[in-house]
Amino acid sequence: MPKHILNGYRVLDMTHVLAGPSATRLMAEMGAEVLKVEFPTAGDITRALPAIKGGRSAYFAQQNRGKKSVCLDLKADSAKEVLRDLIKISDVFIENFAPGVISRLGFSWEEVRELNPEIIMCSISAFGQEGELSALPGFDYIAQAYSGIMGMIGEAGGPPSFPMAGIGDVMTGAHAACAIGFALLHRERGGHGQYLDISLLDSYMHCHEMNIQAYSVSNGEIEPTRSGHHHYAVCPLGLFKGKTHYICIIALQNQWPGVCRAIGRPDLITDSVYETNEKRLEKSEEVIAIIQDWLDLQESDESILASLEAERVPCAPVLSISEVVNTKHILDRGVVRPIQDPKLGEVLVPGMPLRFSEFEHNQPMNTSFLGEDNKYVLEGMLGYEPQRIKKLIEEGVLFENPET
Amino acid sequence: MPKHILNGYRVLDMTHVLAGPSATRLMAEMGAEVLKVEFPTAGDITRALPAIKGGRSAYFAQQNRGKKSVCLDLKADSAKEVLRDLIKISDVFIENFAPGVISRLGFSWEEVRELNPEIIMCSISAFGQEGELSALPGFDYIAQAYSGIMGMIGEAGGPPSFPMAGIGDVMTGAHAACAIGFALLHRERGGHGQYLDISLLDSYMHCHEMNIQAYSVSNGEIEPTRSGHHHYAVCPLGLFKGKTHYICIIALQNQWPGVCRAIGRPDLITDSVYETNEKRLEKSEEVIAIIQDWLDLQESDESILASLEAERVPCAPVLSISEVVNTKHILDRGVVRPIQDPKLGEVLVPGMPLRFSEFEHNQPMNTSFLGEDNKYVLEGMLGYEPQRIKKLIEEGVLFENPET
Repeated sequence: MPKHILNGYRVLDMTHVLAGPSATRLMAEMGAEVLKVEFPTAGDITRALPAIKGGRSAYFAQQNRGKKSVCLDLKADSAKEVLRDLIKISDVFIENFAPGVISRLGFSWEEVRELNPEIIMCSISAFGQEGELSALPGFDYIAQAYSGIMGMIGEAGGPPSFPMAGIGDVMTGAHAACAIGFALLHRERGGHGQYLDISLLDSYMHCHEMNIQAYSVSNGEIEPTRSGHHHYAVCPLGLFKGKTHYICIIALQNQWPGVCRAIGRPDLITDSVYETNEKRLEKSEEVIAIIQDWLDLQESDESILASLEAERVPCAPVLSISEVVNTKHILDRGVVRPIQDPKLGEVLVPGMPLRFSEFEHNQPMNTSFLGEDNKYVLEGMLGYEPQRIKKLIEEGVLFENPET
Repeated sequence: MPKHILNGYRVLDMTHVLAGPSATRLMAEMGAEVLKVEFPTAGDITRALPAIKGGRSAYFAQQNRGKKSVCLDLKADSAKEVLRDLIKISDVFIENFAPGVISRLGFSWEEVRELNPEIIMCSISAFGQEGELSALPGFDYIAQAYSGIMGMIGEAGGPPSFPMAGIGDVMTGAHAACAIGFALLHRERGGHGQYLDISLLDSYMHCHEMNIQAYSVSNGEIEPTRSGHHHYAVCPLGLFKGKTHYICIIALQNQWPGVCRAIGRPDLITDSVYETNEKRLEKSEEVIAIIQDWLDLQESDESILASLEAERVPCAPVLSISEVVNTKHILDRGVVRPIQDPKLGEVLVPGMPLRFSEFEHNQPMNTSFLGEDNKYVLEGMLGYEPQRIKKLIEEGVLFENPET
């Protein structure tokens, strides 16, 4: 484990796929001892997700580095006993099953706090633990659709267009880690354990900085809707066709004169037809065409960006993944970083998003094979006799697969 | 302040607009005393952002409830002295100016830690405090474009389509609050202050669960790209046209038989042409058409969803904002909540995304007018003489505007 803030804390991790593992990955990166409990025979289903090399999933490795793997068949009472013993020695217990599942396994908050009143228990779900939508399946896009966020993405009049990235799951994991950190702080200051109910729906809703309040205050007169690659409320703010990239250009009121100068049309600065955002929005097709015409005459995306940057106009090329992983700033700062794996070799993954001055950034860690740490945990941590462990293995309750 | 985890902690907040204020809003909701420092004469520019009613911005109110407002002209040495005094009595100091600005004001981490070695200082920026892109303007979409996330949204072959919501800013705020919580925990356990460098680029990159590693492991053979409203790697996973909504339908391997039954085509379950995700992807146009044809024959979106849910197929209507704010589950749970404001009246805003069993959820709080708490802070908290405060007001260093 890296030398870091959470040294000395133990996290019992019954999460799988993405939202939960994102939360515990952050804690592993901060030095917690994370014990990931998986089920025989496949373990976390992401052990089978692409990209795969030598039988190892880079998806799994990215999310589960720095965690120990214990593989237990929780249908067996003897496995539940192991879990109870682990709850007694852990600081955090986190799970992201469908609501109700953890209770049916015998590990509701009431039962968990009975075992360890100081533990922080965190459940992550799509819609929260209660309420009429809580039973719906917990996929990112399902929560995104209900949150109103999906409806705010895509061309006007056409279908919504969802991001090909697990934004909802990952940021919900960040919200969960945030809540856990503050709950641990509370405990450290004399408080006790508590239960945290974190959901994708809450986290997605959190991202509506404008839409909910604007609809509400205007009594529905403002009904925000998607407007594709140009913003419905600011002009110019959108994507233009460069030579090889789409170019994002943003001009709030302060930047409009800069845009005019950059495109060689200083006359527009004082043109009353375009002087306010409201007026530009009314003539947005004209404004967009004027800017696009200028882009069409330029030699390269570099020269387009340089002209805009010289006038302090916010602008950016929309990068592809191949460009992202070759961008000097991104590599220099470890925003994307190489990790080492015995089967995958060197793989690029996103860096640790939190940077602390007192601790090294992007520390090296291993990814455990399924059940690799069974013995370390049961014998070394819980003090079980070798005979008892042998029996659990023979009964198929304790499982390992050193291939995945 | 609400009775909550951060009671007793003071946060000196020099953030504006969205990412920083999101972080400090979370801390205000958790009971911290947040002192928001603004500049004359307008204060945080979001005090002028829509929706506006009675001169008050609901945008500002949503983000800044529960914070005290101190309005200081930091060009004056006497204002810098106030800020130095506030740093000495605060636990957290947070800012989101462009990199370099806070140092030029005389409040670099080196200077701040000199004043208070126990303080947690957090800077939020688009690209981080150092590196060749760090000087770029800090707008959400600019970081989104460079992170590769924007390029993963939109129809294949067409322009990207950015979300009409401040996802990047808000979730970066959540990342920042997370880092601050753990840094406070570290201090509570015997550590000291430190500096946190949080960025939109790091937070956006964090959301690539698949794209970076898949590109890297496959040596570029897999180059993830946007694919609109149907996923490029899973079939069926996408948006279909219902009667009044787009309907999101997701079928991983386990759900494919359920889809076949729901659409009245149990024969497809054993049809070898469609038996694996790979095969379905190859014939994705056919698969999508079969499902769409079924939707076209249904009577209502409710019946479509009921048929799919009966087979446990993950599905959801893509809700509009007007539907979101009228969804029972969302209101019942306070995922969206009403807040009260003397000028705005009752406004709906997103709920507090973190739910703690030991503290009341969605507690009421006020939003301060610009400089409303000048006297409380300078006289009550710093113990300045009335004469000194009067002088600061006369010099225009201390400012207030009870209208915004």
